[in-house]
Amino acid sequence: MDDLFEWGRKVLAEQPFSRLLGAELVSLSRTAVEMRLPIKPEFRQQYGFVHGGVLSYAADSALTYVGASALDALVVTSEFKINYLRPALGDVILARASLVHAGRNQAVCRCDIFVAQAGSEKLCAVAQGTIVKARQAKV
Amino acid sequence: MDDLFEWGRKVLAEQPFSRLLGAELVSLSRTAVEMRLPIKPEFRQQYGFVHGGVLSYAADSALTYVGASALDALVVTSEFKINYLRPALGDVILARASLVHAGRNQAVCRCDIFVAQAGSEKLCAVAQGTIVKARQAKV
Amino acid sequence: MDDLFEWGRKVLAEQPFSRLLGAELVSLSRTAVEMRLPIKPEFRQQYGFVHGGVLSYAADSALTYVGASALDALVVTSEFKINYLRPALGDVILARASLVHAGRNQAVCRCDIFVAQAGSEKLCAVAQGTIVKARQAKV
Amino acid sequence: MDDLFEWGRKVLAEQPFSRLLGAELVSLSRTAVEMRLPIKPEFRQQYGFVHGGVLSYAADSALTYVGASALDALVVTSEFKINYLRPALGDVILARASLVHAGRNQAVCRCDIFVAQAGSEKLCAVAQGTIVKARQAKV
Repeated sequence: MDDLFEWGRKVLAEQPFSRLLGAELVSLSRTAVEMRLPIKPEFRQQYGFVHGGVLSYAADSALTYVGASALDALVVTSEFKINYLRPALGDVILARASLVHAGRNQAVCRCDIFVAQAGSEKLCAVAQGTIVKARQAKV
Repeated sequence: MDDLFEWGRKVLAEQPFSRLLGAELVSLSRTAVEMRLPIKPEFRQQYGFVHGGVLSYAADSALTYVGASALDALVVTSEFKINYLRPALGDVILARASLVHAGRNQAVCRCDIFVAQAGSEKLCAVAQGTIVKARQAKV
Repeated sequence: MDDLFEWGRKVLAEQPFSRLLGAELVSLSRTAVEMRLPIKPEFRQQYGFVHGGVLSYAADSALTYVGASALDALVVTSEFKINYLRPALGDVILARASLVHAGRNQAVCRCDIFVAQAGSEKLCAVAQGTIVKARQAKV
Repeated sequence: MDDLFEWGRKVLAEQPFSRLLGAELVSLSRTAVEMRLPIKPEFRQQYGFVHGGVLSYAADSALTYVGASALDALVVTSEFKINYLRPALGDVILARASLVHAGRNQAVCRCDIFVAQAGSEKLCAVAQGTIVKARQAKV
């Protein structure tokens, strides 16, 4: 496990909301991340599928991880858009984001969100967003 | 309290994820909704602000309520985009969404997300998205 | 006519693509803009409606005008999203954008795009986007 | 040249706005498209770069081609978002869109927009959007 991955796990552990949802970091590089989120009964909406808000959390988080790693700085998420493709039903949410382009102050990233069930993965949502450097120097 | 509002509260109560976060319906009409979400310590990210995923949940939910009310049908959220404007720090998240246009099969809506603290409100995020009719007939 | 409006007209006159389409600046302040684009036969797609690309040009332009005026700086358009609401058929496209929030380095704006015909206006598209300061000092 | 490509070229020739800009169809399948747009002096904004509206036209067009091909139906573009990555300067714009997911009534697609100059390509913008079936039966 390298320093970047260790940094990523430490950040996740410091986020109460990510702990509430049980998000885990699977891998992290300067250009890509994979996060997993075991699906809990509390994630559902009224039809039994995973609530869109859980998928948008996963997209926001994965996009931000890649952006922060690419920019190597304190960052904030500027914006993203998400398209929901099919109802999310299964065991685990997998969010895989990758860097599209990093400039001096901002990074544009894309994210694919899958739901895995019994070893099979289905693409449930896709996102695209912008991560920007925060004002403060990196700690 | 009218039927639409009662329906809205019933749906919210049937969503385990909305119960987990503690979302409440303040008002609901065919063209507008207001939701509130008292901020809990578990909503924070590593800097103490509300995690973007909480705001995107609020946007997704409010947009979907307006879309469902306008279309008067079972719906799914097709997509949305969100811009984060400032760090969210305060007591309560208020998500106010309104209908922009309803067609036969889909509705386009906008949402403003505020954080209220000590009686003062600050706009923290804005969203825009599409809600579409689901295949099934309305129950 | 104030300085800001004069600046805006000068910029528009310096844009060959805006001249090609025939865009005009109606009004411009630090927080709002109105542009008009008389509809030409060359704007159509195969069904006779205005091509979406013309509407997205109008959204891009109006959003950027407001962002530049609010930030009072050289800017670039970072991103935007547009929802098309109905086929655009008429005499003139009107793009009205307003400032949602201006930070130190970026402005978030919204835009409503109407088509006017015989004195009646119809909302045809809505957009939301981010304008950021360019690296260079303002000229 | 197959039927789909022939259909695509015919549609492009029937779009006055695409003729005005000089767009060409390079390839088209059920899941991917490539369009090219030789850069003309009239495409520029005030700094000499290609106007964002030209890139958003290319994104809108390429996304719609893939969506129409995947759905095999009359379609309308519902929405898209575009992130501009760097100033577009060069000889030719290349828009490559691919299908992400096709449902019964809508298709979600992504598009990469490059500018080519002297044989070298640079990614200038990325887009993601939704194409939906129109009401009418396919002609």
